[in-house]
Amino acid sequence: MSEGQVARRDRILHAAAELGATADFDRVQMNEVAKDAGVAIGTLYRYFPSKTHLFAAVFEEQLSAFVDRLSPAGGEDLVADIGEVLVSSCHELLRRPRLCAAMVQSTAARYALEPFGAPEGDSALYRAILRTLSRVAPDEDVRSTVRLLVYSWWGVLVSSLSGKTPVEQAEADIRRAARLLIGPLVAR
Amino acid sequence: MSEGQVARRDRILHAAAELGATADFDRVQMNEVAKDAGVAIGTLYRYFPSKTHLFAAVFEEQLSAFVDRLSPAGGEDLVADIGEVLVSSCHELLRRPRLCAAMVQSTAARYALEPFGAPEGDSALYRAILRTLSRVAPDEDVRSTVRLLVYSWWGVLVSSLSGKTPVEQAEADIRRAARLLIGPLVAR
Repeated sequence: MSEGQVARRDRILHAAAELGATADFDRVQMNEVAKDAGVAIGTLYRYFPSKTHLFAAVFEEQLSAFVDRLSPAGGEDLVADIGEVLVSSCHELLRRPRLCAAMVQSTAARYALEPFGAPEGDSALYRAILRTLSRVAPDEDVRSTVRLLVYSWWGVLVSSLSGKTPVEQAEADIRRAARLLIGPLVAR
Repeated sequence: MSEGQVARRDRILHAAAELGATADFDRVQMNEVAKDAGVAIGTLYRYFPSKTHLFAAVFEEQLSAFVDRLSPAGGEDLVADIGEVLVSSCHELLRRPRLCAAMVQSTAARYALEPFGAPEGDSALYRAILRTLSRVAPDEDVRSTVRLLVYSWWGVLVSSLSGKTPVEQAEADIRRAARLLIGPLVAR
């Protein structure tokens, strides 16, 4: 993408996030996103063929920003570092529950609708955790474990979002997942 | 529920499963389910207020049947037992991919739509695993770990269903989740 395209894409993602934070997903209009981003509706659809594509991209964008805090080489205590980034990502996503619901719904739909599409490598979270574990050889054991951690994190996020898991419990669940799943990899 | 009601409910669930196995979820008609189950449409809606309620119930019903194979007190090797039941449940659900997709979609929607509803205790899988772990005191550590195992299992199921995880990899992921998450509980 050219610089202009990147800037336009950023404006679109930003406008979508703002609208999605204040209105329910079903009520967010692509027209309004285009208007707020200052692009023509045709341009918006060239970047994102559907509202579901758009909000799945907002999710990846936000998650990328959160996980960029993870040191690429990993710090002293990898397991705790990963646990804290996962906890704070979940926490920040839940600060705007309407937007979070829109992103979760869109990501789940894209995931189900793209059979045989890009597998796990797709996810900013998966890639960031794997990068942080670079001191560990990324064999199938490691990849499988990181997949399970991502599934666990997603389960906690959805459960918190729907009010089934109180915040403290969600945080404890995520830290536990990091410890039990990643712990043995780092220790080996 | 009276015996007659249980029988009627079973007929409805059976009819829904048969129709859902051969037609995409969007094309399954409540009218047809009622006809095949031999009940009036009003009766069907009294049991299940929507198609989403109906297929979420089919999922719970099928899962209950699979996990009933878990010995309530747990066998010699709890971790392996739980792993095998989770693997075979996933495997059997995926044998009818259309029905599996309908059930997964409905369960996810019900889960998101019922905020602050019955928490994890809702799920046949969660209850069965907890029951099998009865020799371990069911404190918050145990409940949290079982939640994470259920989230992991769900993630593997959805990933397999959408063709992102090949079968052998899915099975290895589930066994790994059981070993890493439940292993330390049984050993303590």
